[in-house]
Amino acid sequence: MPKPAPTQQLIDGLLKGDRLALARAISRVEDDAAEAARIVRGVFAQTGRAHLIGVTGAPGTGKSTLVSALAERYRAQGLTVGVLAVDPTSPFSGGALLGDRVRMTGHSGDAGVFIRSMATRRGTGGLARASADAMLLLDAGGFDRVIVETVGAGQAEIEIASVADTVVVVEAPGLGDEVQAIKAGLLEIADIFAVNKADRKGAGRTVAALEMMLETGGAAAQVRSIFHHGQRMAMEAAASETDAEERWPIPVLETVAVSGGGVDQLRDALERHWAWLEGSGARSAREGRRLGHMLQTLVQAEVLARMERTLPPGLRSDLVEGMMRRQIDPYSAAAEMVKKLSG
Amino acid sequence: MPKPAPTQQLIDGLLKGDRLALARAISRVEDDAAEAARIVRGVFAQTGRAHLIGVTGAPGTGKSTLVSALAERYRAQGLTVGVLAVDPTSPFSGGALLGDRVRMTGHSGDAGVFIRSMATRRGTGGLARASADAMLLLDAGGFDRVIVETVGAGQAEIEIASVADTVVVVEAPGLGDEVQAIKAGLLEIADIFAVNKADRKGAGRTVAALEMMLETGGAAAQVRSIFHHGQRMAMEAAASETDAEERWPIPVLETVAVSGGGVDQLRDALERHWAWLEGSGARSAREGRRLGHMLQTLVQAEVLARMERTLPPGLRSDLVEGMMRRQIDPYSAAAEMVKKLSG
Repeated sequence: MPKPAPTQQLIDGLLKGDRLALARAISRVEDDAAEAARIVRGVFAQTGRAHLIGVTGAPGTGKSTLVSALAERYRAQGLTVGVLAVDPTSPFSGGALLGDRVRMTGHSGDAGVFIRSMATRRGTGGLARASADAMLLLDAGGFDRVIVETVGAGQAEIEIASVADTVVVVEAPGLGDEVQAIKAGLLEIADIFAVNKADRKGAGRTVAALEMMLETGGAAAQVRSIFHHGQRMAMEAAASETDAEERWPIPVLETVAVSGGGVDQLRDALERHWAWLEGSGARSAREGRRLGHMLQTLVQAEVLARMERTLPPGLRSDLVEGMMRRQIDPYSAAAEMVKKLSG
Repeated sequence: MPKPAPTQQLIDGLLKGDRLALARAISRVEDDAAEAARIVRGVFAQTGRAHLIGVTGAPGTGKSTLVSALAERYRAQGLTVGVLAVDPTSPFSGGALLGDRVRMTGHSGDAGVFIRSMATRRGTGGLARASADAMLLLDAGGFDRVIVETVGAGQAEIEIASVADTVVVVEAPGLGDEVQAIKAGLLEIADIFAVNKADRKGAGRTVAALEMMLETGGAAAQVRSIFHHGQRMAMEAAASETDAEERWPIPVLETVAVSGGGVDQLRDALERHWAWLEGSGARSAREGRRLGHMLQTLVQAEVLARMERTLPPGLRSDLVEGMMRRQIDPYSAAAEMVKKLSG
């Protein structure tokens, strides 16, 4: 087996546009938080240039196909595109799915497009951390457009896409009641709606429903802001952004990703939003929110790891045993544990 | 407006089987962590009797219909059923959806079945906490079977269902590649597979694929255990449970929830698993894992809240500003913040 490349070599390589070095660096970032820290430190000064695009939506809306079609349009313009497909429950990581997708989408052999799937098994915290790191690596790797695609059915997954510069929410008609329901969490984060599979029955109804919701609920939803979990930093950033954001009229577009229908219009809307972000000052507000979110994720992980290290041995299992005998309830047990941590 | 009922009155009411008191108690638990602590403390001694059943699967598999059909079967046997439908992205909570579902499923007016939907907007941590609390309330309310139903597309949502005594993973044929893909995260937590919509084309293939995956990957998957996020308690409990679990043969059942096909067989499999849990000692291992998970959730929330309180004012925004100027990278900023918290 060849010796693994030193970290600095990977950093130098990815900054020079070496795709293999980039792929390896993303794998390290995914596998190992300590390596992630070294690599991100080495590339961070070269980030902040790409347009970061989040694409999310329920399973079955055709997000992946739409992202591939979009990447193609960007390539036709001469822009380079990095794609990060995040699926926390997928058994595939990097290898198989990546290969299939590159072949499927005809991007194989084109160094101007890089598609990477990410499926860490380390729970939601680890996935958020690794995804944010990988986006920085793609940005530092020199891609003009960096797309992160997540399944918009879990709160944690939606959040990964929601910190992008521009958020595209993909809907589709006829997916059955459960899927079709326009999710409030998705409505709040969308800068652009794409009703994909627009050649199917019911597409007009989906478009109309979205437009109605935007008219009636849009303003209120924006004030409620992207983060509902009380992260002060994010709230502050969102508040400072609200004035500017009111001027962006959220478009509802129809696309047929498989045939390429409407994809030019989607690309145009993305470019318009990018220009609007720059012009309105919202771009730096969003970057602040994104970096604040990243800081929060990293600090929380460290605080929780420290908690684990300082926990008196046996305390947890004693408390669980007490709960099983109904001698202590979960809230009192938690208070006990927190007291021991402070002392 | 009438004065809100005192907490103790709600506790007394729900323990006596008063459904209105139960509904109100769940609302309080959902809205307010301090009230949740008081209510759970008041009812915890009366918990531990119900068979807790987790039902999860991708959107569009027909989970809700299957759960309703299952509740009907239990009622026919004279068993009472509490259902908690968790959808973190749904705009509906309690009211509208609950009413619709009760009417839809014909359980309206039957005090032996209680259906409650839960959609907190407080992020994944708050949802996990509120769901665990609500399950305890349903248990204390005297229901024989308590079902928690979650969308199996986000890691955090899957985890809510995964701590039940018995986990049913619902699949369905023909949902398109993205949905159809058998998720590794779901494979690992299933005690029973239900291939719903089994009258549709492709059902046989879905069943065969699941059976093959169980044969080849089942043993390995079980050893990897339910929790992939390194919670020590959970790992210990899972390890002690592994020996016993190897003896439970995971069935793959075909159901057609809308017509009731196969639902008796699902109920029978659930009863067999419940008996197996009791007989093998796995029941108390699972309860330990569940309570350990709950303890962890509560302690983490408190530790993070304490972190927020002790944070020097302005530090976070200074660090974010430094990052935006590329003077400091996110990992160094996080280290800085952690240092300030310790000092």
